[in-house]
Amino acid sequence: MEILKKYNTKLQEHLEKAVLQKEPHQLYDPIKYILSLGGKRIRPSLTLMVCDFFGSDFKKAMSAALAVELFHNFSLIHDDIMDNAPLRRGKKTVHEKWDVNTAILSGDAMLILAYQFFESYEPKMFQELAKLFSETALQVCEGQQHDMDFETRDDVTLVEYIKMIDHKTAVLLGAAMKMGAIVAEASESDKDKIYQFGRNLGIAFQLQDDYLDVFGNPETFGKQVGGDIISNKKTFLYLMAVGNGSSVQAEELEHLFSINPKDPTDKISTVKEIFLTSGAAKATRDEIEKYSKNAYSLLEAINISEEKKEMLRGFGNSLMQRNI
Amino acid sequence: MEILKKYNTKLQEHLEKAVLQKEPHQLYDPIKYILSLGGKRIRPSLTLMVCDFFGSDFKKAMSAALAVELFHNFSLIHDDIMDNAPLRRGKKTVHEKWDVNTAILSGDAMLILAYQFFESYEPKMFQELAKLFSETALQVCEGQQHDMDFETRDDVTLVEYIKMIDHKTAVLLGAAMKMGAIVAEASESDKDKIYQFGRNLGIAFQLQDDYLDVFGNPETFGKQVGGDIISNKKTFLYLMAVGNGSSVQAEELEHLFSINPKDPTDKISTVKEIFLTSGAAKATRDEIEKYSKNAYSLLEAINISEEKKEMLRGFGNSLMQRNI
Repeated sequence: MEILKKYNTKLQEHLEKAVLQKEPHQLYDPIKYILSLGGKRIRPSLTLMVCDFFGSDFKKAMSAALAVELFHNFSLIHDDIMDNAPLRRGKKTVHEKWDVNTAILSGDAMLILAYQFFESYEPKMFQELAKLFSETALQVCEGQQHDMDFETRDDVTLVEYIKMIDHKTAVLLGAAMKMGAIVAEASESDKDKIYQFGRNLGIAFQLQDDYLDVFGNPETFGKQVGGDIISNKKTFLYLMAVGNGSSVQAEELEHLFSINPKDPTDKISTVKEIFLTSGAAKATRDEIEKYSKNAYSLLEAINISEEKKEMLRGFGNSLMQRNI
Repeated sequence: MEILKKYNTKLQEHLEKAVLQKEPHQLYDPIKYILSLGGKRIRPSLTLMVCDFFGSDFKKAMSAALAVELFHNFSLIHDDIMDNAPLRRGKKTVHEKWDVNTAILSGDAMLILAYQFFESYEPKMFQELAKLFSETALQVCEGQQHDMDFETRDDVTLVEYIKMIDHKTAVLLGAAMKMGAIVAEASESDKDKIYQFGRNLGIAFQLQDDYLDVFGNPETFGKQVGGDIISNKKTFLYLMAVGNGSSVQAEELEHLFSINPKDPTDKISTVKEIFLTSGAAKATRDEIEKYSKNAYSLLEAINISEEKKEMLRGFGNSLMQRNI
């Protein structure tokens, strides 16, 4: 995304120098490795951009941005162990390239390193950033635990589901933005609004991810369309269809989400049909709309120029259209 | 140990309330569980005692003490996964009672919770405590990695070994004490001295642990005497004997530490003999003496009453005599 490019380039330079060659290699090599795998660096770029938009030199937010990126990558290392994932960005995951013990310990070190980046700020700012960071990090752990718990529960509510994606995904987006505002010494009200902007946008993004997994264009979605149906993942669409569809539809869905046919073509098309006829597809689109609107109306009230608001809207649209 | 009892009792009350019943249970239950297994709570009690000795109300150091204890238990949860340990304090380890994923994630949450305890201090003190905490936590990770690396290396030097036990064990003892001094707003010089006192004592303690594992009284040592020899652990005694013994002794030791006889009686007595005749036993006792003396001479220069110094010496002696 063009708007983030300027920040991203600067960030990349710092990221390469972020983890110096320290001993023992076995502990720090996996950290360098995961950081070298790339990624869009959306969260830390947002920290820099928001700092810029609130009228401060964006380079002042570099340490906070690096902390956000290190935390994100820490969570990837540990999540990949839990998900038994062989690949990350097309390359071997840390526990595959090394082993589980290395992945646990290097992840731990990475979380601590993230906290250390805040040390470059003066005490008051340090405390504000570290507090937000801890609160967010704990919510991310809680979200991950809820996500794992949901796999074996059949009584998950829509409210619980929204809370799970909020914690697992959205709060970090909000916190990344708020950190930029903290460094720029924005007003309490603006700090809170940019946080809620990021959080609402994050929920909308994740709901749309669920939606596109079923109804997306295979050529632009980037992941396998139907993947969630194949792996019986109970997304917002599923929960909505089971809750709001007819009892016949609910029963059929529950059956379909308990089997693993070799050829999933029929399963996918039946599930799609139920998602449409039960009104779940429409309800999900409405929910995405609701959170996007929330985000944009929060943006309206923030004390920055119309030009910058337009750029943040532009970022939101790019994120939702997945051309970031 | 009588001297720590007063602090320990108060600490226990707070520890039970430290982790409130939060959702999801699956994330917080393992944290409550490991904290319920007890332990001597030496480190956090030291934080409180040192704060007291530097003339402040020891209850002011409660949050820092809880952070130290949470960090210690976080490291136990993750280390137990890495060591594949079935038991901790006679009860099932977290990854055995639940599973590895739960142990990873609950450990992560516990590390973050530890940081949150510092939030009750005003910004400057918060920053000083959190900085020391991060530095120490990272050293503990490095020590754990070195310890794992040493298992497969045959060129470990004595200097590397001391550094490993310093990082894995001693720095946390030093940091626990220094945090008490930070909360009591002791002078920079006193903060540094109490830190180095704890660190030197920690190294002496760990070296003595190695020594008693071979030469200890089975009735008072608390662990199986000869355990390190049976598991071929290359401790200070081993490294010293291989380095300073005759080439015949070195070769025999290297052979003995590559085999796992069903009945280890002969192996243990031969190794013991080599440790004695090579001078390794004496050299280890000298090294313990050196670090203890360092600790006590640092204590001399600290600006507290003779009575309190005597109590810290008493603590040091109890620790070394293992009747704590």
